[in-house]
Amino acid sequence: MDITLIDKRNFHLFQPLLYQVATGGLGPAEIAAPLRSLFRRQPNIRILCAEVVDIDPERQTVVLHDGQALHWDYLVIAAGASSNYFGNDSWAPYAPGLKTIEDAQEIRRRVLSALETAERIESAQERKAWLTFVVVGGGPTGVEMAGALAELVHVTVRDEYRAFDPRTARVLLLEGAPRVLTPYPEPLSENARQSLQQLGVEVITGAMVQEITPDHILYTVGEETFILPTRTVVWAAGVRAAPLAAILARCTNTPTDRGGRLIVAPDLSLPDYPNIFVIGDMAHFAHQTGAPLPGVAPVAMQQGRYVARRIRGLITGAPEMPPFHYHERGNMAVIGRKAAVAQIGRLHFTGWFAWLMWLFVHLMFLVGFENRLLVFVQWAWNYFTRNRRARLILGESHQESPRESLTPQQQAPR
Amino acid sequence: MDITLIDKRNFHLFQPLLYQVATGGLGPAEIAAPLRSLFRRQPNIRILCAEVVDIDPERQTVVLHDGQALHWDYLVIAAGASSNYFGNDSWAPYAPGLKTIEDAQEIRRRVLSALETAERIESAQERKAWLTFVVVGGGPTGVEMAGALAELVHVTVRDEYRAFDPRTARVLLLEGAPRVLTPYPEPLSENARQSLQQLGVEVITGAMVQEITPDHILYTVGEETFILPTRTVVWAAGVRAAPLAAILARCTNTPTDRGGRLIVAPDLSLPDYPNIFVIGDMAHFAHQTGAPLPGVAPVAMQQGRYVARRIRGLITGAPEMPPFHYHERGNMAVIGRKAAVAQIGRLHFTGWFAWLMWLFVHLMFLVGFENRLLVFVQWAWNYFTRNRRARLILGESHQESPRESLTPQQQAPR
Repeated sequence: MDITLIDKRNFHLFQPLLYQVATGGLGPAEIAAPLRSLFRRQPNIRILCAEVVDIDPERQTVVLHDGQALHWDYLVIAAGASSNYFGNDSWAPYAPGLKTIEDAQEIRRRVLSALETAERIESAQERKAWLTFVVVGGGPTGVEMAGALAELVHVTVRDEYRAFDPRTARVLLLEGAPRVLTPYPEPLSENARQSLQQLGVEVITGAMVQEITPDHILYTVGEETFILPTRTVVWAAGVRAAPLAAILARCTNTPTDRGGRLIVAPDLSLPDYPNIFVIGDMAHFAHQTGAPLPGVAPVAMQQGRYVARRIRGLITGAPEMPPFHYHERGNMAVIGRKAAVAQIGRLHFTGWFAWLMWLFVHLMFLVGFENRLLVFVQWAWNYFTRNRRARLILGESHQESPRESLTPQQQAPR
Repeated sequence: MDITLIDKRNFHLFQPLLYQVATGGLGPAEIAAPLRSLFRRQPNIRILCAEVVDIDPERQTVVLHDGQALHWDYLVIAAGASSNYFGNDSWAPYAPGLKTIEDAQEIRRRVLSALETAERIESAQERKAWLTFVVVGGGPTGVEMAGALAELVHVTVRDEYRAFDPRTARVLLLEGAPRVLTPYPEPLSENARQSLQQLGVEVITGAMVQEITPDHILYTVGEETFILPTRTVVWAAGVRAAPLAAILARCTNTPTDRGGRLIVAPDLSLPDYPNIFVIGDMAHFAHQTGAPLPGVAPVAMQQGRYVARRIRGLITGAPEMPPFHYHERGNMAVIGRKAAVAQIGRLHFTGWFAWLMWLFVHLMFLVGFENRLLVFVQWAWNYFTRNRRARLILGESHQESPRESLTPQQQAPR
C-alpha cells in the first residue's frame, strides 16, 4: 500500500497549545514536529510539501500548486479549519485568530509590542489603550488565551516596566452567549468564570461585537453600546472549514453546513464517492446525535483510525463495517496556573486536580518523545518561576502600530 | 545612577549559536533571552525597545525613531555588526547572512524548502541545483554553518526522502584565502578542513566569488572560472559595523576603518568626546597590536566591563585608569558532532576533546539558567539521535523559489 501525505506545512502542529506560543510560554518548535521525522521509518509513506489546488473525483486525481497531478485510489481530506469572522473579514487584520504558528507569533508580537509602546508613550490615555487586551470568544481557545494573557501581563512581567504598573493592564473576554464554555455543564462554566476573574480577566457575557478597528472595539450588551479603546484584539469566536472544503464541495456536489463543513456519510465518505473520505474539522457528522460532532482533537483522531480500518476493509474485501461512532471520553479546558475545568462522563473536576489532568493529557498527546520532555521542563519552569522565556518580538519590532505589519496569511487570506 | 538601555530588539541574542537555528537544531527562544527578564531586579535600569536614529554629542541627546529625545551624561554605543557584501549588496537577496534570528529563520526556510522542492521536482538537473548548498566564507561562522548543514542533509534527513538520497546533496564551503579559519594556527586550519571533508563538505580555498544569482554562483580559483548551479547560498564572508556607526562617525567627526568601525581612544571613548564610548564589533581598537581586535564575544565582554569601571571612575573622580587591555584566553570553532578546534595560548586542541570544551564554554555563556538547561537537553538529544527537531518551514512554505520571499531586513537594509 503506497501512501502519499500532502501538506502545505512540513510539520504536524499541536494546535491546543498555540495560545502558549502566543503568550511566550513555549517556542513554535515545542508544539510542532517535522512530518518527515514522524514517518521516517515507514518507507511506503511519501510526503509532499505542497498545496492542493484542485480535485478531480472522476479521474481520481489531485492537482498541486505547481500543476503536478497525482492519481489516487482512496482520498482522505483532513485540512482542518481556519478562523471564521462570520462575514466580517475586514476585522481580520485587527483581530488575528489562533490557528497557525504564524498567527500565534503575530499575536505574541502585538502583545509584547503593546507593552513596549506603553513603556515609551507619554500620553496616559494612549497608554491605557495599549494596555487593554481583548479576547473575543469564550470557548476553550478564548478562555485559555485570556487566562494566559492575564498571567503574562499581571504576573510574569510584573517587575519589568518602569513607566507603568503592568497589574493595571486590562484583559477582557467577550462572549456572546450568557456564559463561557457553553458546551460544558453550567457549574463548570461558572467555575471557569470565577477562575478567570481571580486571574484578573474581566469576563463580559452577552456581548455582541459590532465593529473592530485599529484603535477600538465596539460591542453591545443588550441595549447598551460600549466603545473600548484597545490596540490588541485576539479573535477566538469561531472557526470554519479550510478553503479546500469549498473546492471539494464544488467538484463533488456535496452539501456543506454554515461553517463550510462537508456533510459526510455514516462511514465518513462523501455520499456519492465511497472512496473519498473527509475527517476532522472539515467534516459535518451528525448521524448519532443530530448536532454535528465538535471540532476537537479526539473526534479527528478517532475518525482517522476509523477511515484507516475502513480503507483496509475496502481493499481486502472484508465485510461491511458499522458506521463511525464517536466515543466521547470527556472535555477539558485550562484557565491558568492551577486552574482548569474537566468533564468526564457525569464527573466534573475543577481547580488544581483538573489542571493536573489537563497537563497529563496534553503532554501525552504531544507528538514525539523529545517534545514532551522539553515542554514538561518548560512548564515546570514556568510553573515555579512564573516566567515565560519565549517572549521574543520577531519581525518588525518597534513600530508604533503593530497592526500595520501583517503576516502574509492576513494580507491575502487563502 | 540611572541607566537607560535602548535596543531595537526586546531580547539579548547569543549570536554564536545562530547557525544552530539556521539548521533546525535549536529554536530562536533557546538562544535569546528577553532583556526585561534579565534586568528585572535592577530598578535603576530602564529599557526602551526603540531604534536610535540620531545622536547629538553637543547637547548630549539621542533621538529615537518616534522623535523622542533622551539626554545622557555618558553614552555607550554597542550596536554590533551586520553582513558585509563588500560593495555587492545586490547579492544579499540570494545569499542571506547570519546575523539576526530572522536571517537564521530565513536560511532554515530556504534549506528545508530546497529539500522539499527536490522531493517534488521531476527534472534531475534541476533537482541537483536544489540539492547544492554553498556557504561563502571560511571563518568560524562559515565553518560552523557548513558543518551543521552537512550533518543536516547527510545524516539527519538521511531516511526522510523518497525521490532522492539526501547523501547525494552537495555542501560547498568557498573561502578566498588559501586556508579556512585564517586567524588560527595552520595545523588547526588543516584539521578543520579534514574534519569538514569527513562530514562531506567540499572545501574550496582560494575561491573568489564573482557573481551570485537566483540559480547559480560564479567563482574563480586562480585563472579558472566555475559556474555552480545552486538555489541556496549562505553568506558568511564578512561583517561591517551596524548602520548606527555611520551616524555616530558623522556627528562626532570620528574616522572609521574600511569595515565602518569607529577608531577609538585607548580608553574606548571617542577621541574628542571622553563621555562617548564605543565597544564590541563597532569599535576599531588597535593600541596594543597594530591590528584591530577581532569582532568576537570575549573582546566585547571585556570592553563592556572596562567601560563600566571607567564611567564609575569618572563619576566618583577616581584616579586615571590604565588603557583597555584585551586578555586573550583562546579561540575555538566547532565543526560538527565531536569535531572542533581550539587554541588556548600555545596549546592546540582538536576533535572530541575540543568539541567538549566548545560545548562547555558556549553553555556557560548562554544567558539565563533555563536556556542553558534546555539547550543542553536538546544538544544531548541531537547528539544521541542525530535528530534536529526545530525543522519548521515558517512563512511561505511551498513556493518553487524561496528567494522571492525575503525578510523585511533584506528588502530594505537599514
